[in-house]
Amino acid sequence: MVKVGDRASFTKSFSHEDVVLFAEVSGDHNPIHLNEEYAADTRFGRPIVHGILTAGLVSSVLGNELPGPGSVYLSQMLRFRAPVYYGDTVTAIVEVTAVREDKPIVTLRTTCFNQAGQVVVEGEAVLLVPT
Amino acid sequence: MVKVGDRASFTKSFSHEDVVLFAEVSGDHNPIHLNEEYAADTRFGRPIVHGILTAGLVSSVLGNELPGPGSVYLSQMLRFRAPVYYGDTVTAIVEVTAVREDKPIVTLRTTCFNQAGQVVVEGEAVLLVPT
Repeated sequence: MVKVGDRASFTKSFSHEDVVLFAEVSGDHNPIHLNEEYAADTRFGRPIVHGILTAGLVSSVLGNELPGPGSVYLSQMLRFRAPVYYGDTVTAIVEVTAVREDKPIVTLRTTCFNQAGQVVVEGEAVLLVPT
Repeated sequence: MVKVGDRASFTKSFSHEDVVLFAEVSGDHNPIHLNEEYAADTRFGRPIVHGILTAGLVSSVLGNELPGPGSVYLSQMLRFRAPVYYGDTVTAIVEVTAVREDKPIVTLRTTCFNQAGQVVVEGEAVLLVPT
């Protein structure tokens, strides 16, 4: 059984190809993610990975490990704290903060760090777990 | 200038291939999304599209149209209300609900409907807009 304090993580490096594929499946062609010249004139100076693609790592650790296969998303809050660049290695860590007693529903703190240990995305997920 | 009440939308049908590609770029291989036999035994009866992939349509309309290219995500709340199945056609609608006067920051209501008009994802986005 899932209990408060349980943790799991998943790490991935984002390639340019990942960003192109995500643009294709989502339809999000914001040039800030895809166009080097455009991105050079923004506050970031170079292209950044889609925030929702980074959030995919959270979905990944939730779906693969904790609560694990069969769990179903009820909600996800995402706060984008810092940019993720091509080549960055991001670790998503999830930690159970609450387990309902009346229903198979768990709440987890969800945090993504880059390779420098900086928080890039933080938030909270609520999931229905298989019984 | 973006103003309260401005709306935009984006529509996409999700294929099995989209789900496989998203599983690849995110690392989320939850069998509820990918395995017909596994999904047959769940409350959904068949595989469902990743919630975060559906959320990609919200990111898409935000990045492509409103606030549009160059805008940067600060936060996104997502509430997953109903499943999205392979082949479903989802429309993401965003509507500006607040514009800060002191900073170039806008808040939008973000809602995704399926082809039957049912809300599948709802939430709220906050973005920094290019000045």
